[in-house]
Amino acid sequence: MQRITIDPIQRVADTLQLTNEQIHYLQRVLRLKPGDVFIAQDGQGEQWQSQLTEVLGRAQVLSVLTRPPRPVTLELVAALPKTGFDQVVRQATELGVTHIRPLLSERTLLKPSPKKLVRWQRIAQEASEQCERGYVPDIATPVEFTQWIRGKSGGKSIQVGNYFCVARVNSPGLLPCVQALLSDSPQQSIQVVIGPEGGWTPEEITDAIAHGYQATSLGSGILRATTASLTALAIISSVREQLL
Amino acid sequence: MQRITIDPIQRVADTLQLTNEQIHYLQRVLRLKPGDVFIAQDGQGEQWQSQLTEVLGRAQVLSVLTRPPRPVTLELVAALPKTGFDQVVRQATELGVTHIRPLLSERTLLKPSPKKLVRWQRIAQEASEQCERGYVPDIATPVEFTQWIRGKSGGKSIQVGNYFCVARVNSPGLLPCVQALLSDSPQQSIQVVIGPEGGWTPEEITDAIAHGYQATSLGSGILRATTASLTALAIISSVREQLL
Repeated sequence: MQRITIDPIQRVADTLQLTNEQIHYLQRVLRLKPGDVFIAQDGQGEQWQSQLTEVLGRAQVLSVLTRPPRPVTLELVAALPKTGFDQVVRQATELGVTHIRPLLSERTLLKPSPKKLVRWQRIAQEASEQCERGYVPDIATPVEFTQWIRGKSGGKSIQVGNYFCVARVNSPGLLPCVQALLSDSPQQSIQVVIGPEGGWTPEEITDAIAHGYQATSLGSGILRATTASLTALAIISSVREQLL
Repeated sequence: MQRITIDPIQRVADTLQLTNEQIHYLQRVLRLKPGDVFIAQDGQGEQWQSQLTEVLGRAQVLSVLTRPPRPVTLELVAALPKTGFDQVVRQATELGVTHIRPLLSERTLLKPSPKKLVRWQRIAQEASEQCERGYVPDIATPVEFTQWIRGKSGGKSIQVGNYFCVARVNSPGLLPCVQALLSDSPQQSIQVVIGPEGGWTPEEITDAIAHGYQATSLGSGILRATTASLTALAIISSVREQLL
């Protein structure tokens, strides 16, 4: 069934007050007519079976649907690639990511305009509707790598579930690391950090390890930055799925 | 170092006779000048360190590079999605696929023109150059699902390493299946089959199982067809990497 994401304040008693954009989407894109049924979600797990009415911009809530289980935290921290981040946001959402944090690292070439964040949020929302997850991932404002890492508590000890993917360096594979972690505690939050084209600088790698990140490898092959993000999330989601 | 793929017949003794397209690519796209060194590969594992000469269209072979190990067979059989197959070919090549077979299934909407095959082959070649694999995957001409499955030997017994991914059906996960298989024989060839938007028809699933395919799941979430292909390959490549 077709889905749209609404703001909870749009629900007034048993009616949904739709925005012009939502009306356009339901009628012109999804081709729904008065009387047709769809699912409205708030992106935080609430979802309602709803029906378009004859009154323009108003839908009737028919029933409250079961809340899907809240997903375990899976955060993708990715240095922005030059192109292709739209695709990363879409696919990451399908793979069940709960938080996306874009970084500007030393070798990041893109300086995104503030409009990009709005665009990524819309893409994440659409992907969440399509894949019926009921939850829309949070997307943070891009920050500099140095600023981001400074916000982390330092210390030599590895922070559980924090993985920093490096290429062309001899590090343990992400798959066995995640399997060892989740076989003990399948509900453990995971954060995975992926570099830009050209990789991390040696200083960035040192800095991440000094802040408790475990350096991990996605294999001996060379992956583009966008493929690396997807590969890491596919591995983590599959292991979690196997153990939950 | 920059790479291009050449036909072995372009190598005559210690010189490479380059095509106009290759000259354009080396000089205009990769910005190489006479004297600059690059790697020429034949896409089948042979690779030569080479140097552009002053003579237009000619390069000097400096040395024969070590052949990378021949990759173990990993075949992606994918019902063509409506859009996004270019991206699948690119990312599948990065993830080490050796064969790609596009299928036209019951619910496939795309009827690709013959030009598409040439385009996919060029994308695979470029991706192989970028990720320095030395091997370019074979891409087969798209065929109908029914024609393809008829070419398989039937029989009730499961063919080892043949996985048929299904959505919304209770099947064992691809990850544990591949781990069980490869932990016994890490060099085992694998073929993984992915459906189109809208999934397989019940008849197609029955047909595949009757031809020895093991039905497997990529998880409880709903993935678009393109994301499903990459998720499957990321899982298989990571397991193989872990065990080889």
